Amino acid sequence: MFFHQKRLQYFTPPEKPDPVYAMKMQELIGGSFGEMTVMMQYLFQGWNCRGPAKYRDMLLDIGTEEIGHVEMLATMIACLLDKAPLKLQEEGAKDRIVGAVMGGSNPRDEIMAAAMNPQHAIVSGLGAMPADSVGFPWNGRFIVASGNLLADFRSNLHAESQGLMQAVRLYEMTDDPGVKDHLSFMIARDTMHQNQWLAAIEDLQSEGLEATVAPSVAHEYGKNEYAYQFWNHSEGTQSAEGRWAKGPTPDGKGEFEYVANPQPIGPEPEPPQPDPRLHGTSKTSQVPGNAGLT
Amino acid sequence: MFFHQKRLQYFTPPEKPDPVYAMKMQELIGGSFGEMTVMMQYLFQGWNCRGPAKYRDMLLDIGTEEIGHVEMLATMIACLLDKAPLKLQEEGAKDRIVGAVMGGSNPRDEIMAAAMNPQHAIVSGLGAMPADSVGFPWNGRFIVASGNLLADFRSNLHAESQGLMQAVRLYEMTDDPGVKDHLSFMIARDTMHQNQWLAAIEDLQSEGLEATVAPSVAHEYGKNEYAYQFWNHSEGTQSAEGRWAKGPTPDGKGEFEYVANPQPIGPEPEPPQPDPRLHGTSKTSQVPGNAGLT
Amino acid sequence: MFFHQKRLQYFTPPEKPDPVYAMKMQELIGGSFGEMTVMMQYLFQGWNCRGPAKYRDMLLDIGTEEIGHVEMLATMIACLLDKAPLKLQEEGAKDRIVGAVMGGSNPRDEIMAAAMNPQHAIVSGLGAMPADSVGFPWNGRFIVASGNLLADFRSNLHAESQGLMQAVRLYEMTDDPGVKDHLSFMIARDTMHQNQWLAAIEDLQSEGLEATVAPSVAHEYGKNEYAYQFWNHSEGTQSAEGRWAKGPTPDGKGEFEYVANPQPIGPEPEPPQPDPRLHGTSKTSQVPGNAGLT
Amino acid sequence: MFFHQKRLQYFTPPEKPDPVYAMKMQELIGGSFGEMTVMMQYLFQGWNCRGPAKYRDMLLDIGTEEIGHVEMLATMIACLLDKAPLKLQEEGAKDRIVGAVMGGSNPRDEIMAAAMNPQHAIVSGLGAMPADSVGFPWNGRFIVASGNLLADFRSNLHAESQGLMQAVRLYEMTDDPGVKDHLSFMIARDTMHQNQWLAAIEDLQSEGLEATVAPSVAHEYGKNEYAYQFWNHSEGTQSAEGRWAKGPTPDGKGEFEYVANPQPIGPEPEPPQPDPRLHGTSKTSQVPGNAGLT
Amino acid sequence: MFFHQKRLQYFTPPEKPDPVYAMKMQELIGGSFGEMTVMMQYLFQGWNCRGPAKYRDMLLDIGTEEIGHVEMLATMIACLLDKAPLKLQEEGAKDRIVGAVMGGSNPRDEIMAAAMNPQHAIVSGLGAMPADSVGFPWNGRFIVASGNLLADFRSNLHAESQGLMQAVRLYEMTDDPGVKDHLSFMIARDTMHQNQWLAAIEDLQSEGLEATVAPSVAHEYGKNEYAYQFWNHSEGTQSAEGRWAKGPTPDGKGEFEYVANPQPIGPEPEPPQPDPRLHGTSKTSQVPGNAGLT
Amino acid sequence: MFFHQKRLQYFTPPEKPDPVYAMKMQELIGGSFGEMTVMMQYLFQGWNCRGPAKYRDMLLDIGTEEIGHVEMLATMIACLLDKAPLKLQEEGAKDRIVGAVMGGSNPRDEIMAAAMNPQHAIVSGLGAMPADSVGFPWNGRFIVASGNLLADFRSNLHAESQGLMQAVRLYEMTDDPGVKDHLSFMIARDTMHQNQWLAAIEDLQSEGLEATVAPSVAHEYGKNEYAYQFWNHSEGTQSAEGRWAKGPTPDGKGEFEYVANPQPIGPEPEPPQPDPRLHGTSKTSQVPGNAGLT
Repeated sequence: MFFHQKRLQYFTPPEKPDPVYAMKMQELIGGSFGEMTVMMQYLFQGWNCRGPAKYRDMLLDIGTEEIGHVEMLATMIACLLDKAPLKLQEEGAKDRIVGAVMGGSNPRDEIMAAAMNPQHAIVSGLGAMPADSVGFPWNGRFIVASGNLLADFRSNLHAESQGLMQAVRLYEMTDDPGVKDHLSFMIARDTMHQNQWLAAIEDLQSEGLEATVAPSVAHEYGKNEYAYQFWNHSEGTQSAEGRWAKGPTPDGKGEFEYVANPQPIGPEPEPPQPDPRLHGTSKTSQVPGNAGLT
Repeated sequence: MFFHQKRLQYFTPPEKPDPVYAMKMQELIGGSFGEMTVMMQYLFQGWNCRGPAKYRDMLLDIGTEEIGHVEMLATMIACLLDKAPLKLQEEGAKDRIVGAVMGGSNPRDEIMAAAMNPQHAIVSGLGAMPADSVGFPWNGRFIVASGNLLADFRSNLHAESQGLMQAVRLYEMTDDPGVKDHLSFMIARDTMHQNQWLAAIEDLQSEGLEATVAPSVAHEYGKNEYAYQFWNHSEGTQSAEGRWAKGPTPDGKGEFEYVANPQPIGPEPEPPQPDPRLHGTSKTSQVPGNAGLT
Repeated sequence: MFFHQKRLQYFTPPEKPDPVYAMKMQELIGGSFGEMTVMMQYLFQGWNCRGPAKYRDMLLDIGTEEIGHVEMLATMIACLLDKAPLKLQEEGAKDRIVGAVMGGSNPRDEIMAAAMNPQHAIVSGLGAMPADSVGFPWNGRFIVASGNLLADFRSNLHAESQGLMQAVRLYEMTDDPGVKDHLSFMIARDTMHQNQWLAAIEDLQSEGLEATVAPSVAHEYGKNEYAYQFWNHSEGTQSAEGRWAKGPTPDGKGEFEYVANPQPIGPEPEPPQPDPRLHGTSKTSQVPGNAGLT
Repeated sequence: MFFHQKRLQYFTPPEKPDPVYAMKMQELIGGSFGEMTVMMQYLFQGWNCRGPAKYRDMLLDIGTEEIGHVEMLATMIACLLDKAPLKLQEEGAKDRIVGAVMGGSNPRDEIMAAAMNPQHAIVSGLGAMPADSVGFPWNGRFIVASGNLLADFRSNLHAESQGLMQAVRLYEMTDDPGVKDHLSFMIARDTMHQNQWLAAIEDLQSEGLEATVAPSVAHEYGKNEYAYQFWNHSEGTQSAEGRWAKGPTPDGKGEFEYVANPQPIGPEPEPPQPDPRLHGTSKTSQVPGNAGLT
Repeated sequence: MFFHQKRLQYFTPPEKPDPVYAMKMQELIGGSFGEMTVMMQYLFQGWNCRGPAKYRDMLLDIGTEEIGHVEMLATMIACLLDKAPLKLQEEGAKDRIVGAVMGGSNPRDEIMAAAMNPQHAIVSGLGAMPADSVGFPWNGRFIVASGNLLADFRSNLHAESQGLMQAVRLYEMTDDPGVKDHLSFMIARDTMHQNQWLAAIEDLQSEGLEATVAPSVAHEYGKNEYAYQFWNHSEGTQSAEGRWAKGPTPDGKGEFEYVANPQPIGPEPEPPQPDPRLHGTSKTSQVPGNAGLT
Repeated sequence: MFFHQKRLQYFTPPEKPDPVYAMKMQELIGGSFGEMTVMMQYLFQGWNCRGPAKYRDMLLDIGTEEIGHVEMLATMIACLLDKAPLKLQEEGAKDRIVGAVMGGSNPRDEIMAAAMNPQHAIVSGLGAMPADSVGFPWNGRFIVASGNLLADFRSNLHAESQGLMQAVRLYEMTDDPGVKDHLSFMIARDTMHQNQWLAAIEDLQSEGLEATVAPSVAHEYGKNEYAYQFWNHSEGTQSAEGRWAKGPTPDGKGEFEYVANPQPIGPEPEPPQPDPRLHGTSKTSQVPGNAGLT
């Protein structure tokens, strides 16, 4: 069960509205790596967690924190949308320039009115939406909770890596000191979370619960003679220069081998002939001759 | 530019058709972590790669290998769908039992006809589709190519971890020796790829191109006093027992701190009053009295 | 900011696993009217609320309660998936019948293994997912937060009406006493929430903040001569018998009028001729004669 | 079966083209609450209607009217897109200013060419599309037809409330008198439809077919002791001040009760231990020690 | 503007319900090539048509007919869903067999209850839905209306070709004489429509409005030396045996040329070095040394 | 199995960056008729092909070529995004004008920064994405591979017709000579591919594998008396003037017949009364009287 506190985890208001930036900031709420993703991912991982209690508790801690991050960003977006221009100005081009020179109007409003997310005006009434920076809705395929904590913590590490980088990019895309201060806090928390998942992976492995490869016993299922070969499927051999092409493999079970000129092992495929009731084209199907149009 | 060879990288035909299993195996083609995802993810990362040549070459090697993995699975699914029963048998329950006891018919066909993916018959004519095991189509939001190789290699590691685990789970869900042999090869390749991304991350860091946190200089953007705190947002303190709650942080820049009873730092939010032209409900809006229905 | 308590709001475990029912129950988590929808809808409405404090506080109360409802259902689904059969049994039809008669095996397992959501095994490792009963992911277009509380409370009333009915339908689709007891609590809460939104609409209108029509002053924008006419666009006049065809309109501003034989008021459309650079087919476009194939 | 008349229900051409506004107006065709939604929702409800004939007839009347509303808007959008600028002008900034001052060119064209929906040029050849104002396609999850007319009429009331408000917002976002006149007619019809659903709900209840809660007998399924309690899940008690917190409930079956300090009733969740074949992390899983990379 | 007639264009009721078949038949309503697609595609093409009146009139004729086809199928699906079993029987395996032998129950009900579309029970109350046979919703990206009638009539021909074949496949998947009779009418109409688009393409070309290639003057934009070469991108030269590899091209403007061993014409790509503010990995980026975890 | 060559099939760099055009060009990568669609469509058709070897080989040739087309466009988009402006300039309106007049700044940058696809900066780091020009992701429902080569080659012809027209439209939307040269090559290849599918259809029919209608024997399933009638579902009879209304049908099996005043053949629908457990509204359902709110 959950409980809500009135105060935000952190907040600095923007110095002035900027509806185009509000549109862009939606990426941090509803994008593939936005706060809705990490919130839902950690909560579902926590609810599905069947491992030791410390992992479950930790997942629910951070998942619950992330609900509050959506809240912080929703509040920021509402402030950035305040006083958004709703329509292109009606004055002609000449007047616009004159007005601009005179300081009597703001020509940037036309750009703002044209380029902001139209749904911020029409649908949400200048509020945040569960969508990304191009208006595509957040969806459940953005998250994963597989039951295997090593695989899932790697998913979390990846999500925080992409998410932190996106926050830094958005930081670079504004000069508003309020927005920058606000993002700065979120960048710090994401830095923590990136460190946290690295530590959690270490913890999981030092507890002996998982190994290097997920799942731990994958090698008992695979043809191990192919499990350490790098196949060079493209022209050139620059790829031979990397750590992945020679030396011991990270799982400690083999040596990387570079196959410079790989050859297929399988046969040419021979798909079965089609069931005639489905009217696929077979090798021998015949129709009565026709001389019609194509 | 690309070139196609006729032979499959590897292939073992199934011992007998199984259209319900074919439906499930679609997860490995068109699911979030299926071969279409890794194929597209590595190709786009390769095409967008602006780092040293060995990374670009390596990305295109593995991306090109993965096109062939989609091909292998598509061939397998066509074989599993061969002779799929298209409709429920019309005999009544009594006859079915009699028939079953007599060995004269196969009651499992009814289950197969009812539970297989109907689009395998209606849409694709017993061929593979670019969709997952519930028929949801593969889509471009499944992949990421951010330009930052550390963030992207972590995405690759996560995709291979989930994908390998799914292949192992599917291995456990069949007794067909052909399918098992086929999956065994794919598990070996995915084991390689998981090792490969671990090695590639190590390579990237040892080259000095990226550090522990993505992006490398995130700490110059964030409020570092909050960058190493674990906030305990839920009842209980089992989460204090993990590696993420104490000791040096993996990035080597701080010490984990456990905040057992976190308090909000921000204010209560005060969203701006709505633009009257948008007819949001404000604190003071008044309408002429009405006595109508709700 | 949010906080998590360890105990569930309510819970009764199922008497026995039922993976097919688990698939169906996903509708209550990730369907259009599932708990993720009401959770997200109320939270976004609360975060975007610019009306009096009591509405905001109420929205966040119920939104926060709904997070816990997702948690309850996720726990239920994990229990229903426990010991799910992962593959069709390998024995032939004859043996299956014999085994069944002998009590030595459970033929329903084959149906379960074939008809359960395959992603519950392959993707989530027998955990709940943010998707509906056919595996379609929850997405942000399922919710609305418009800033107008009358329009939004009607959305909430509709969501709770559909959602409660779906819970009752699922109640009828199982005989498991644990599941029934669990759903019974959720049905009670949804009954409260349906009453709550009816009361909230009444409250909003009695406070004079909104009227009968959303938005309150819509009649100042519209051609009111058409605002109370029922147009009979189909054969027959049974539709004249309803309350919507005669008598005063609910908004107290007009009388319903039944137009039995409506005629178009507008002209025939004349779309503009196409820009030649876009190569649309115009009324007069001519190409050099060709005698080729189609 | 259906029949088409050539003339539009109503139409006023725009005074001048405005491709950016055309993009925004798409919300009324293909948005969540656009005309495609109400058209499809009423048609499917009508086709699925198993209640008295007057409801079925009425649903098909209005559903058929709505097909014509999509037609009206498609015609409007084609007119607004006429002569849309297809590319940014090539002259440099200085020339643009000079041109603007001289009146010899129209700098707003650059904004138009950059900010219009690119698919209006590339895909539809300056025609309307079945998508919303950010280009997201209309989809079938936008509608509901549940078979229960009370639940469905509430869905209709909500859709018309959101839809009417969006039309008013778009009315405010243009100064074109043709567009305003056109929208004015649509606002009038939506006003009718909002009144209509209120009247239809009243009709349904006065006929004794449905009660206050959908479905009517929900109280026979629920734990009624929880059916009238408001749980205060967030800090503060402003939510106690509303109609939903005290007094008789709208369904006439209880009294609202305000639970100021709610406590969970359920236990801590204990998800079952994972099936080892799925390789979820359990409380006790052990792997052979490894000293590899993470 | 549109008008509805009460009687269906054609209809034969099913002999008996079959909820699993109802699920499959949804493909013809809401699948990529179902009746919603052709309905919407022809209506939008008609509304956007800027060519001679006969094309516009014809498009609206057939588009209006297709609305009635959705209606016919929705009615059929409601009949097929009647008396659908809602839950798995509770008796154990042994009893089920005994019951089956005795004729006292119908074991196929368990398969039906498990394998039908769960939303047909939970969401639509045994009515049709705007979705395909795996429950994926119809969406606006399924249709095209480009303004070029040659391109669009080819789209229509393709849609009717796929759609007719799917109807034939579904015909083969049932033994119910009512369903077969009903489908038989639809197959006849689709046969007409396939002929119709072939004739319409012929008409358009004989009127001189369009040529062989869409758009007609594409050759004025292209490097025509590459416009008639077949590039052999795969092993083997079986592809040299087809009509596409030799002889005059259908557009009458060239001769097919078979390039057996194609070579790339372009350079190796050199993507620009990344903007440092976006933190992509460049060829030369350096970070302060770190010795942390990966 | 596949192999990658380093050089691009063709490439001309743009003369200068243009991030707004890069957004638009995404339509050719990830739109409904972009290169990802034809690539995936031809590969899946090739993998599923059960007809003579020349068709399979040809499909894989062209599918493999199309992978390289995605590569070419991805490289182009990276170049167009180079040096994209990341934020609106901070100077006020007056300064901007002054700066513009002075030549000291570039006011078009503001439009670029506002109107470019924000994900090109935030998500992909100025690289191409698998999405269309409004940012909607490519998805598997864009393609078809039905097993029937006539139906599929018509799908291919339609895709190349729409795709070629879109390429021409984009050609018209830029003045950059590099982009024009690059598109010119792609237009030539698409011209080939349109010719190719016309020839392939001819080939298939001259081999006697398929006839005029797909599938070839559809007339054995349909009520042929309805298979050649044009039903005039709309006001006016301009549609009688086309080739589709009179004369022999293209399949050589009938004569077109124009039905000027079509009448429904079927009955009024009578949907079955609802299962009471699902609580649909029936003709006779009664609830205990209530006098509550709506």
